[in-house]
Amino acid sequence: MPPTDMSPTENRSSHFDESGAARMVDISAKPVTVRAATAIGSVQMRRETAEMIRGGTGSKGDVLAVARLAAISATKLTHLLIPLCHAIAVEGVEVRFDFADEQTLRCEVDVRTSGRTGVEMEAMTAVSVACLTVYDMAKSVDRAMTIGPIRLLEKSGGRSGHFDAR
Amino acid sequence: MPPTDMSPTENRSSHFDESGAARMVDISAKPVTVRAATAIGSVQMRRETAEMIRGGTGSKGDVLAVARLAAISATKLTHLLIPLCHAIAVEGVEVRFDFADEQTLRCEVDVRTSGRTGVEMEAMTAVSVACLTVYDMAKSVDRAMTIGPIRLLEKSGGRSGHFDAR
Amino acid sequence: MPPTDMSPTENRSSHFDESGAARMVDISAKPVTVRAATAIGSVQMRRETAEMIRGGTGSKGDVLAVARLAAISATKLTHLLIPLCHAIAVEGVEVRFDFADEQTLRCEVDVRTSGRTGVEMEAMTAVSVACLTVYDMAKSVDRAMTIGPIRLLEKSGGRSGHFDAR
Amino acid sequence: MPPTDMSPTENRSSHFDESGAARMVDISAKPVTVRAATAIGSVQMRRETAEMIRGGTGSKGDVLAVARLAAISATKLTHLLIPLCHAIAVEGVEVRFDFADEQTLRCEVDVRTSGRTGVEMEAMTAVSVACLTVYDMAKSVDRAMTIGPIRLLEKSGGRSGHFDAR
Amino acid sequence: MPPTDMSPTENRSSHFDESGAARMVDISAKPVTVRAATAIGSVQMRRETAEMIRGGTGSKGDVLAVARLAAISATKLTHLLIPLCHAIAVEGVEVRFDFADEQTLRCEVDVRTSGRTGVEMEAMTAVSVACLTVYDMAKSVDRAMTIGPIRLLEKSGGRSGHFDAR
Amino acid sequence: MPPTDMSPTENRSSHFDESGAARMVDISAKPVTVRAATAIGSVQMRRETAEMIRGGTGSKGDVLAVARLAAISATKLTHLLIPLCHAIAVEGVEVRFDFADEQTLRCEVDVRTSGRTGVEMEAMTAVSVACLTVYDMAKSVDRAMTIGPIRLLEKSGGRSGHFDAR
Repeated sequence: MPPTDMSPTENRSSHFDESGAARMVDISAKPVTVRAATAIGSVQMRRETAEMIRGGTGSKGDVLAVARLAAISATKLTHLLIPLCHAIAVEGVEVRFDFADEQTLRCEVDVRTSGRTGVEMEAMTAVSVACLTVYDMAKSVDRAMTIGPIRLLEKSGGRSGHFDAR
Repeated sequence: MPPTDMSPTENRSSHFDESGAARMVDISAKPVTVRAATAIGSVQMRRETAEMIRGGTGSKGDVLAVARLAAISATKLTHLLIPLCHAIAVEGVEVRFDFADEQTLRCEVDVRTSGRTGVEMEAMTAVSVACLTVYDMAKSVDRAMTIGPIRLLEKSGGRSGHFDAR
Repeated sequence: MPPTDMSPTENRSSHFDESGAARMVDISAKPVTVRAATAIGSVQMRRETAEMIRGGTGSKGDVLAVARLAAISATKLTHLLIPLCHAIAVEGVEVRFDFADEQTLRCEVDVRTSGRTGVEMEAMTAVSVACLTVYDMAKSVDRAMTIGPIRLLEKSGGRSGHFDAR
Repeated sequence: MPPTDMSPTENRSSHFDESGAARMVDISAKPVTVRAATAIGSVQMRRETAEMIRGGTGSKGDVLAVARLAAISATKLTHLLIPLCHAIAVEGVEVRFDFADEQTLRCEVDVRTSGRTGVEMEAMTAVSVACLTVYDMAKSVDRAMTIGPIRLLEKSGGRSGHFDAR
Repeated sequence: MPPTDMSPTENRSSHFDESGAARMVDISAKPVTVRAATAIGSVQMRRETAEMIRGGTGSKGDVLAVARLAAISATKLTHLLIPLCHAIAVEGVEVRFDFADEQTLRCEVDVRTSGRTGVEMEAMTAVSVACLTVYDMAKSVDRAMTIGPIRLLEKSGGRSGHFDAR
Repeated sequence: MPPTDMSPTENRSSHFDESGAARMVDISAKPVTVRAATAIGSVQMRRETAEMIRGGTGSKGDVLAVARLAAISATKLTHLLIPLCHAIAVEGVEVRFDFADEQTLRCEVDVRTSGRTGVEMEAMTAVSVACLTVYDMAKSVDRAMTIGPIRLLEKSGGRSGHFDAR
């Protein structure tokens, strides 16, 4: 079960100062440590679409290979997408796909770095972009696909401790 | 009810050629028409987190204003995120947020352009980035938030006809 | 003399809707016309710095050639910098430098396109980036340089008519 | 009063080699230290425009909240705008706005990092982009606004010592 | 045989004005037509490296699938790489690989658009990035690979007529 | 002579895992050391084109100054071009041009950083982009120019040892 990490004194986002103005949180005094995060997400689709992606239907390309590369590249664009996110030099990414059932593609992404802040957003963004890429590749045959749920599975390194929601 | 647009001859993604190689589909001969797409998504969170975002808890910044800008900017980065997506000059974006219930934030994005291909991916990506930004802004108080479902609500303009899944 | 274009009914920015939410203004119904804009800016510096830039002081590179290229490239990045700005395919850029006096470098940029909205922001951004680049190139010898004033000189094409502040 | 840091032996920009060719200065041997910079800039506008931005005129969005986010994001794009600027992982950004008088909006930006070179350009660029964004948001009511002066207020950390022009 | 298109009056690059200052050439008055370009390039490598890429050596990923996607994405980044290149909305890309001999991988890229200027640079850049990606993927086993020759094979559309160097 | 660094156990690219899935190799445990790489490339052109670039033909701009800046900027975009390349904070770049003979322009780029992985790809990409920029600047007078060979000249720092192919 995921931990509850909201303390009484933390009932506002650290991304705002006392006056409510957005800021990029100062991490320059935090130590460099190895940090890892894993996120997971899924895409719901029609049975035929899943078969097409799995390769059951004749001549076709590798949808998941494209989505995997998009996920890896997304970790390098995360700071340009999420306004208050720090630019982090991502130092390792792995992307895994499997089918949870006949209509549910699952994607899991691990991100690692040695830096001053965590890589949750990189992992969450990579999963989202993998799912969006699957949608893009298959939308000509199934425009009603649904993306989600997407959530953080695990996070380690840094001051806020280990988070484990597996 | 969403239409079924998979024909017997379309059992592969148009993003691959006959040999299975990925390509950017040639749209240079398609007419310029006004095209619109609307996507919707949501973020599940704890009651306290929703209250914080809605403004019920003292001094804090405007999470949704940040997420709205992130969504608009994301429509301009979509082609860099989704490998086979065309670069489209997006010509109008609106982003709406509401709470479906005490724990569910909902985001809807309309995208419009006059061009040679549709803007579904821009709308889907904008919703995803809005949800990711909410996650980023509130993750210090609720790391277990879940993103999704994200799906296409409506699409108009272009050869493939009107899609309506409202 | 610059025209006064604020009407009684326009006392809010068109970049917000009635509820105050930011949006990218919908231009998809506007006609494609040729549009041009010219902006001007300056950098105040010490006499010695100006001499260095003008080439009076021995072996040195061409600061203004670097700033000129930075200005041209900036027109291609404007939509990523200015949140509600449309991505515009800039179709022509000219950058001119001169010295207004012994301590004042002046930069003027013309931008042209054939599109659905104006290119003022591209011209203003290009001038700003030219000035910033001069600052960067010369800051090791003169950290107290001052940038500005930067303003729109002229704009033509589009519904809002000709603006001329020369 | 700002210090004079031009020595007789430094009468050329370090961004050029002996032959005058542009280069990215080698900083790989410099130590990692905490570095900070603050820049300031202003936008001159009509009284009515200032009132609109301050919120005196009925229904309207928050221009300064948009400009603040643009400034923060600009620190992440600085190295793509300024040709010889190093890519720096910015680790903290704060943006403040106030009105110096009834027609002058002022913007101050602090940037911090722990790295091998300073963050003056990130601070100067962030102020410039904040001013440009204000211009963009209000240009439909006041196209004659003027940006500047923009200058470095303070800089600390690194070999070149403290610079203080407050 | 490639045509000779240098006329006596064209002995300077159109990318400079009369004073020698760089500019982005004004194309706003040029007609929108369909334009295509094909470029070709190759990578010279050791026999074992070529076998690895072709799939002759046990467990391994698909180097060419990665390079193909990199080439397609490169067409969307060309204007950010080549300083005076216009931003073009690329509307179709195909990438083909074959082995010319046991040590020579060949890559050919077709780019199409309907716009006001040609897409030679997009095709040339895509081929270059495909070759660089192959180098990156295989450099841990063969750091001495050589890229080139890379050249324009064919170009059509636009005022300057058909170029055919096949 | 270039060393042979392919061992019997390394007959697949480290960019793939055992199942053949692409990944960004985890470097978070590698030490930070100073790393350098030098790449070289050339452009073959007509005698008249070389004369124009060398400055022998009347009024014209400085093609090589533009190409030099493009090369430097390319080192900052390499990770966005090469899918599995890490984002590296490049800390020093020098670009040299010379003519090997009357028709052959040569470009050499040195890149330095202090980081966890090498900068070969930054050097190779910078040389490629320099050559592409020369092609772009001169293509209006010589569309048949040929780029290459491009290769790594030297690499130092890091676990894999010194590579010297001069």
